[in-house]
Amino acid sequence: MSRYVISLGGNALGNNADEQKQLLRHVAEAIHPLIQAGHDMVIVHGNGPQVGMINLSFTESSSTPMMPFAECGAMSQGYIGFHIQNALHNIMNGHADSRPVSTVVTQVLVDPEDPAFQQPTKPIGAFYNETDARTLARSTGYVMVEDSGRGYRRVVPSPKPVDIMEKDAILALLDQHQIVIAAGGGGIPVIEKEGKLFGVDAVIDKDHASAKMAEIIGADALVILTAVDAVYLDFNTPDQRKLAKVTLEELDVFLADDHFKKGSMLPKIEACMAFTKATGRPSVIAALDDAALAFQQQAGTIILP
Amino acid sequence: MSRYVISLGGNALGNNADEQKQLLRHVAEAIHPLIQAGHDMVIVHGNGPQVGMINLSFTESSSTPMMPFAECGAMSQGYIGFHIQNALHNIMNGHADSRPVSTVVTQVLVDPEDPAFQQPTKPIGAFYNETDARTLARSTGYVMVEDSGRGYRRVVPSPKPVDIMEKDAILALLDQHQIVIAAGGGGIPVIEKEGKLFGVDAVIDKDHASAKMAEIIGADALVILTAVDAVYLDFNTPDQRKLAKVTLEELDVFLADDHFKKGSMLPKIEACMAFTKATGRPSVIAALDDAALAFQQQAGTIILP
Repeated sequence: MSRYVISLGGNALGNNADEQKQLLRHVAEAIHPLIQAGHDMVIVHGNGPQVGMINLSFTESSSTPMMPFAECGAMSQGYIGFHIQNALHNIMNGHADSRPVSTVVTQVLVDPEDPAFQQPTKPIGAFYNETDARTLARSTGYVMVEDSGRGYRRVVPSPKPVDIMEKDAILALLDQHQIVIAAGGGGIPVIEKEGKLFGVDAVIDKDHASAKMAEIIGADALVILTAVDAVYLDFNTPDQRKLAKVTLEELDVFLADDHFKKGSMLPKIEACMAFTKATGRPSVIAALDDAALAFQQQAGTIILP
Repeated sequence: MSRYVISLGGNALGNNADEQKQLLRHVAEAIHPLIQAGHDMVIVHGNGPQVGMINLSFTESSSTPMMPFAECGAMSQGYIGFHIQNALHNIMNGHADSRPVSTVVTQVLVDPEDPAFQQPTKPIGAFYNETDARTLARSTGYVMVEDSGRGYRRVVPSPKPVDIMEKDAILALLDQHQIVIAAGGGGIPVIEKEGKLFGVDAVIDKDHASAKMAEIIGADALVILTAVDAVYLDFNTPDQRKLAKVTLEELDVFLADDHFKKGSMLPKIEACMAFTKATGRPSVIAALDDAALAFQQQAGTIILP
């Protein structure tokens, strides 16, 4: 019996409540064998499309107030957490090894001196034309950038996670072998001033938050479940090669050779390396459908110290 | 050291994120002495204005999908829970008796055979004119009623809570003397079909959910904090009399005499009576600012078996 952090992508959760419910039934099926095997786990999920949707609703609605991004993130944790705990409850039901599952609303501490705050990079929310984008930037101080030819969007910083503020709750639940959903969307980013926590407009990468979570709860492995079956060198070229096992030292060389796509495989690999470096324990990147095999180190890419 | 459920009104939380943060600083100040006294507690909060705001944003926004009411409730638990746990963390900071605090996203079971499902009474979401209300009713099956001269609104059922689905998580946290925020807005209403849970469009009264929570966690008392300092007979008349202590038997008489306002004091009294009847333990209705005194039974109305 081991303790794991499982990281799930927000892009795999669909664009509305019905889609999300259906897709999460499938996620629950993939994770169920690991619960049956007796493993303890914290599930961290992404929230990119969902927090964007929530933010956009408040922006477009004429009679509701502006909603800060940290609060939209908190809403997305309730929304997605509800569906994950519901799906896991439903798939465990009637099985002898059914266990309690719940979502902990999670604040994740970031450092106000993180260089990311000097260089916002993460596009969020609605698209604007150039004129509206300039007006918005002037009135709010938002940093607006042109995004993939589709218009202008606000960008926010993506600082590194420093601490999980609700770790005591998460650990208390894990100690009772309960399944925990936490740090959704990478967590609600907060900074500390004179011992008090304040929400900030930022996005913490959910894989980095997963790595920090895995470190803090003493996970035996970090498992990142995604859309591809493994890490590849020269991905999407005729020369692509799957990595079954790879060490930190080998990855350093591949990183220097620029093998991994920014905003896609790169943050996953960096997160795995951070966990494996800090703990000496393995990380796994695998397809959601291979979750059970990946736990037996028979699928995906295993990252070793 | 005792175990309590504290019920907080959603109307006291303000209409936007900034207001809510400010008001919750005040709530945290009122509750802090009880934490310092070593009491364990589950905090249940209302969400009427907040879930209405979230629902309205999705309704008014042209480019985001329809959002079912159960999912809006889940979002409100993340939004309000984040602010409560943040405010309590901030006020406890630096004090030796600081304790972990977190929010558990909570599904509350209701009975599909509850008579409330035959008679929806709880108005939610946007106001419509008569024509639009009729069109909406025809296309969706929503029950629309005229609401206080301001237009037509959808009404949903308000069934009684039967069980708290995440009780094991809440109990595990309480056993570690952690402070728990749960069943926000009365909980996300779910019904059970063949052992699986499904969200339903309904609103569970948060005071009734608090009473069920208090029963399940074995609370020593249920404490409902509200805007008035106590329960009154002939309230808002020249003859009004404050009730300092009252028994279930006395309340039955006052109820028969129609002393308490529906949708306001009545559900609070019914919730207290349900808890006190089921457990033989006291309930308290008091003003938020009197929280510390109310815990010493020196303020508010004490309901005894």
